[in-house]
Amino acid sequence: MKTAFYISDGTAITSEVFGHALLSLFPVEFNHQTIAFVETKKKALETKEIINKVAKKSGEAPLVFHTFVNHEIREIIDSCDGVIYNFLEHFISPIEDQLGIKAMPKAHRTHSIHENTYDYRIDAVNYALANDDGGNIANYAQADVILVGVSRSGKTPTSLYLALQYGIKAANYPFIDDDMDDLKIPDFLIPHKKKLYGLTIDPQRLMDIRDGRLANSKYASARQCRMELRAVETLYKKEKIPFLNTTKFSVEEITAKILAETGLHRHKY
Amino acid sequence: MKTAFYISDGTAITSEVFGHALLSLFPVEFNHQTIAFVETKKKALETKEIINKVAKKSGEAPLVFHTFVNHEIREIIDSCDGVIYNFLEHFISPIEDQLGIKAMPKAHRTHSIHENTYDYRIDAVNYALANDDGGNIANYAQADVILVGVSRSGKTPTSLYLALQYGIKAANYPFIDDDMDDLKIPDFLIPHKKKLYGLTIDPQRLMDIRDGRLANSKYASARQCRMELRAVETLYKKEKIPFLNTTKFSVEEITAKILAETGLHRHKY
Repeated sequence: MKTAFYISDGTAITSEVFGHALLSLFPVEFNHQTIAFVETKKKALETKEIINKVAKKSGEAPLVFHTFVNHEIREIIDSCDGVIYNFLEHFISPIEDQLGIKAMPKAHRTHSIHENTYDYRIDAVNYALANDDGGNIANYAQADVILVGVSRSGKTPTSLYLALQYGIKAANYPFIDDDMDDLKIPDFLIPHKKKLYGLTIDPQRLMDIRDGRLANSKYASARQCRMELRAVETLYKKEKIPFLNTTKFSVEEITAKILAETGLHRHKY
Repeated sequence: MKTAFYISDGTAITSEVFGHALLSLFPVEFNHQTIAFVETKKKALETKEIINKVAKKSGEAPLVFHTFVNHEIREIIDSCDGVIYNFLEHFISPIEDQLGIKAMPKAHRTHSIHENTYDYRIDAVNYALANDDGGNIANYAQADVILVGVSRSGKTPTSLYLALQYGIKAANYPFIDDDMDDLKIPDFLIPHKKKLYGLTIDPQRLMDIRDGRLANSKYASARQCRMELRAVETLYKKEKIPFLNTTKFSVEEITAKILAETGLHRHKY
């Protein structure tokens, strides 16, 4: 199996995202290896050695995705027996020409605590946890968005992703069985109605998820799932709450759709 | 202010990561705009119109970072009045040559539910939540890693990031004031000692964080913070628990360091 290396002097997240975006276009299995925090010449030489060993043992040149701008370290990695794909290098010079200024590689690093949006993100994680699953109905004034929906429709992972990635304070409130007879927006949510965003899901997918949690329960039954979903979708339409069916979407896609539709202010790009 | 657009037929996360990595090298403020899910010619034409309006109004060509491989949509976006940076385009052909096969753009999309690691990630989020803050000491057999440390040293955001991004099941267990007199590994953690990973933090930073939570409390006092940190660091060293000082690191960096040091099996790259 071919090996792909993702290498950086930081987290290597950027190298991974771009290498993965490229390699996923090819129907080939890879052995993925990340080597992060290659910050010294010594670590760079060790890394080169690891790549060269893989090349020698497999008889195939590994693919090496990296983002080094520091010349000394870059030269060491570039001299390995792998094939080098450097994402930044190719684009820096055209952007310098476009902006009319030189890149300043040491000014700032992505994915570090020095990004000025970092505290927003940690605050938002704490907010999401404290306000998960209707945990604290007194706190909704601080919410940027309040996700509503039946149990297991994707509210919690979405609120955590909104917080961790974008610093958005997302509360979530579940509609439960007891609410269903005459489903309304609860009184304490009415002042925050403009922040509501509904999630729904296909009944079969909901049954599968709930069955994994509480097998053969009323909670996971076809009848219960269908009834709850019908009730919340009716409510969303009647109250004009924007909503999304999450069945076919990942948490990244759900989040991106909520951001696109609501225009929420993000603390990170 | 110059505008940077991040555009894609999916979440646009890849465009954002790469555009941000590049623009953060320049000491220039940008107005960032993401346009996700540009999946149709109609949406592409609307997007082109938005870019052209910004170009006209500002008198400056916006920077447009995109990842289109579909020709019809790509041609529409490429014909806008912005300057185009297409990350994938430049690298596809050299990788095709290297692998000896053609890219298959429709086979797979990154950040979608169809990635075969998606369920691991959602399971891991549920695990992290159920096992946050010592929530369920009976569940540690299923943990991939158990983060330990004093309150507010970074355990919870790190365990959520490990779960959401990498599908790693991270429990976390807090050492609290009552444990400190004679700090030991609790009996129920001893069978899982090899999974323990310690977090620590500088006393001043811990005081600041705790003071934001409970101002002027014993919990946030210099004496208490120093005492707790001294006790846990002594324990980590005595018991040879690997540990990390989180003070200067983001949740991405803490996670990358834990992955590098432990070699944990990731379900996503």
